[in-house]
Amino acid sequence: MGIRTVVWNEFLHERENDVVRGLYPGGIHETIAAALRADAGLEVSTATLPEPEHGLPAERLGRTDVLLWWGHKAHGQVDDAVVERVAQRVFEGMGLIVLHSGHFSKIFKRLMGTPCSLRWREAGERERAWVVNPSHPIARGLGPAIEIANSEMYGEPFLVPEPLETVFLSWFEGGEVFRSGLTYQRGAGRIFYFEPGHETYPIYHDPDVQTVLRNAVRWAHNPAPAWVDVSDAPNVPYDKARETLEPKGASLHKAGEAGYR
Amino acid sequence: MGIRTVVWNEFLHERENDVVRGLYPGGIHETIAAALRADAGLEVSTATLPEPEHGLPAERLGRTDVLLWWGHKAHGQVDDAVVERVAQRVFEGMGLIVLHSGHFSKIFKRLMGTPCSLRWREAGERERAWVVNPSHPIARGLGPAIEIANSEMYGEPFLVPEPLETVFLSWFEGGEVFRSGLTYQRGAGRIFYFEPGHETYPIYHDPDVQTVLRNAVRWAHNPAPAWVDVSDAPNVPYDKARETLEPKGASLHKAGEAGYR
Amino acid sequence: MGIRTVVWNEFLHERENDVVRGLYPGGIHETIAAALRADAGLEVSTATLPEPEHGLPAERLGRTDVLLWWGHKAHGQVDDAVVERVAQRVFEGMGLIVLHSGHFSKIFKRLMGTPCSLRWREAGERERAWVVNPSHPIARGLGPAIEIANSEMYGEPFLVPEPLETVFLSWFEGGEVFRSGLTYQRGAGRIFYFEPGHETYPIYHDPDVQTVLRNAVRWAHNPAPAWVDVSDAPNVPYDKARETLEPKGASLHKAGEAGYR
Amino acid sequence: MGIRTVVWNEFLHERENDVVRGLYPGGIHETIAAALRADAGLEVSTATLPEPEHGLPAERLGRTDVLLWWGHKAHGQVDDAVVERVAQRVFEGMGLIVLHSGHFSKIFKRLMGTPCSLRWREAGERERAWVVNPSHPIARGLGPAIEIANSEMYGEPFLVPEPLETVFLSWFEGGEVFRSGLTYQRGAGRIFYFEPGHETYPIYHDPDVQTVLRNAVRWAHNPAPAWVDVSDAPNVPYDKARETLEPKGASLHKAGEAGYR
Repeated sequence: MGIRTVVWNEFLHERENDVVRGLYPGGIHETIAAALRADAGLEVSTATLPEPEHGLPAERLGRTDVLLWWGHKAHGQVDDAVVERVAQRVFEGMGLIVLHSGHFSKIFKRLMGTPCSLRWREAGERERAWVVNPSHPIARGLGPAIEIANSEMYGEPFLVPEPLETVFLSWFEGGEVFRSGLTYQRGAGRIFYFEPGHETYPIYHDPDVQTVLRNAVRWAHNPAPAWVDVSDAPNVPYDKARETLEPKGASLHKAGEAGYR
Repeated sequence: MGIRTVVWNEFLHERENDVVRGLYPGGIHETIAAALRADAGLEVSTATLPEPEHGLPAERLGRTDVLLWWGHKAHGQVDDAVVERVAQRVFEGMGLIVLHSGHFSKIFKRLMGTPCSLRWREAGERERAWVVNPSHPIARGLGPAIEIANSEMYGEPFLVPEPLETVFLSWFEGGEVFRSGLTYQRGAGRIFYFEPGHETYPIYHDPDVQTVLRNAVRWAHNPAPAWVDVSDAPNVPYDKARETLEPKGASLHKAGEAGYR
Repeated sequence: MGIRTVVWNEFLHERENDVVRGLYPGGIHETIAAALRADAGLEVSTATLPEPEHGLPAERLGRTDVLLWWGHKAHGQVDDAVVERVAQRVFEGMGLIVLHSGHFSKIFKRLMGTPCSLRWREAGERERAWVVNPSHPIARGLGPAIEIANSEMYGEPFLVPEPLETVFLSWFEGGEVFRSGLTYQRGAGRIFYFEPGHETYPIYHDPDVQTVLRNAVRWAHNPAPAWVDVSDAPNVPYDKARETLEPKGASLHKAGEAGYR
Repeated sequence: MGIRTVVWNEFLHERENDVVRGLYPGGIHETIAAALRADAGLEVSTATLPEPEHGLPAERLGRTDVLLWWGHKAHGQVDDAVVERVAQRVFEGMGLIVLHSGHFSKIFKRLMGTPCSLRWREAGERERAWVVNPSHPIARGLGPAIEIANSEMYGEPFLVPEPLETVFLSWFEGGEVFRSGLTYQRGAGRIFYFEPGHETYPIYHDPDVQTVLRNAVRWAHNPAPAWVDVSDAPNVPYDKARETLEPKGASLHKAGEAGYR
């Protein structure tokens, strides 16, 4: 069985804007899914905002190994219950790859705990994403940098926590820099944020960008069994302690009682 | 002007339970506030759950440098709007010190982005909090370890992100270990989580614990002006770019338009 | 081809001390090698201090994927040239697993850049190594903690840099704690320090400890091609810059000249 | 008493090259020292390579709080014993600020444990050092970026460990990026690497660069008493353990014996 991968897209720009539809006729998710399918070890499907539960019912998420997330103008329309469900699956071990304007998605802000704000400019300028960690699995098969002829500028400061690893740093023609590839871990789940990928440019057709996405899915995949009780805070009774223990002092809790949350 | 410090307490156990009231007659917040006032450089006040807006209206938060947070059984009663307000102030530069059972507070989970779960046992066992980073400002004036005769056990795994720094690691009589002093930064705000401090034990009367709290307030204080627009994502028009830039390619946005959130 | 794994041991205690020889008749390296061979994907051999170049000539290191290092009383006898050679191979991508008293080996201190000092006691006390990052590949197949009936105590502070990840934290019967499993990256090479494993106790016969060692070899293996010029600092001439560039200002260097080191 | 600050310079280019002497008539160290003296809280002196013990005898280092290091063409002439002495003082708590070509100094490589290699080009191109962590004490008083009209390009990958914090990221006219301001801790000592500062350009006369240097000295200063035994590994005898302990099992060491190193 391959790595069960779901590409999520809000799928609005492609239906409303001719330029975007011209670049991504089936939607950004289909372009990305096709790129991922070049790796025969990935089982790729898609989900979009307009579907019931945004295409991410609990049962489906429960058998998803890695989720990619592209959203932009409709972050606010994503149901909070679905966001919590995705977060819980990340804690349990599902990988998450957040793309471009997904920096402001509810799920990314939920997992970072920060504003995830940045500076931006849509002027079709040149971007060069340098590989600063060439030995990282996500950079496998790349040269020193990815050249992107037309990109949206994202500039620092980028309000995220210090990452586990910095994989890419981008140079922009207009004079800015950006930490464009960052890794995190939250619970058992690995998270990769990747900045290149604006809807009005053909960035997801770029072979290097597609290589990054395939690498990232394999990197984010945690083969361990789902850690289903990751959010629980179990009581360890004194007579189950690993060392012999006599209870002392006062207590608010009765034996076996659940803790407060 | 001193460091404007607010000690927040849900203030329920002390009014409902004789043991807790006996240990902390004025409430845990008053014991902590008195300890902090031993540092003449701190301007200390308190706030509690039952007050309007939990004692944390926007105006007061706006002139708070460091906030300490103690909560346990009423995390769910804290208003989400107040939680967001506190989070925004942390991003702007307010320090936050989260105490003991505050690991499950809304504000700590909000800023960590993880479940913040752990294992626990209330058996009055011995805890020894080792200083693993003796040169850290928070450990100033301490010996190799803080001895706590009776403590609630908190055990690993503790579901938080890898910290910026690990300051304390605790040993428990029943056989567990815990990362009991951890630092983080979120936006311009410094965060310190400190595990010792259960309501049924006199831990906040311990001189070493009080030293830690005073040190932590000074460490968490960011003297920089508040970063009030930290959560904004401003557009940088092409003609304001630091390098000369000619716009290219298609665009969804009109000049000067705000980005999506 | 499997992961080419070399187990290095100074191999002195086993020849000088009856207790150690009784526990590890062929040497600690042979016990570890046998444990690793239970994973058919590993090609395991050994090397020891008394061999020419300590069994680690350049050619052999060049085809080693992961090196395990056990040393104790003869750190000072390890040739500096061999240490530099091993360091360079780590930078190029070779994994390194440093065991127990190897905390004071030249190679570990070389790669950490810190004293690597700690507190210790050889009293055969109980150790419990808690898994604090259960989703980490190195912890695969373990329960919540590894119980070690007799161990040498290693206590904090442990003078190493903040790790990339903390995988294990140990509890000791005598009252100390220790960060007993830590990961680092140096250049393209992954490093894992694992504390359990004293020569006068049968720790390397423990099934859980053996599981950790097998997991660690797989985790430390970097399948990328060796980054052979990782230590070079190449000049990028102005006419090879990715952006058009006209040289300006004064210069100390002539075109094409090598930089200073 | 102010923060005792020593500016170290190899002081060769200024005596050999007219351009450099024109920019820094008294040597780079005097320009930097003058800039630091604008902060009355700093007690600033200088030291250079040609002095006995490079101006850094043990007694002087012992009363130095923060050391700045500028070297380029004579890294190899720095005595290894002085390097070890500086490293030990960093572990004890002395702050260290490594400047520009000091990336290849013995002391920086010693403390990083990595090659510290990078790409470079001396073409007088424009550099823009963006502040990515505006709330960091080192960035106090700066705008969004430092503009440097003529700079030497340093490009990624920069072979250092993942930093504690990334404070500056630089954009170069020729198309590269670089992590130009990084913090580390080693033992009790704080380390800041700052890339801008080439000898053939007047970078150390730039007001923003001077602000960074003053801020960095204050940030790197650790007011705690020197941790003089930071590199020791003391034995904790079983009868001095904090928990009651009966020795068990075999032992190589006699009671009170020093450990191996």
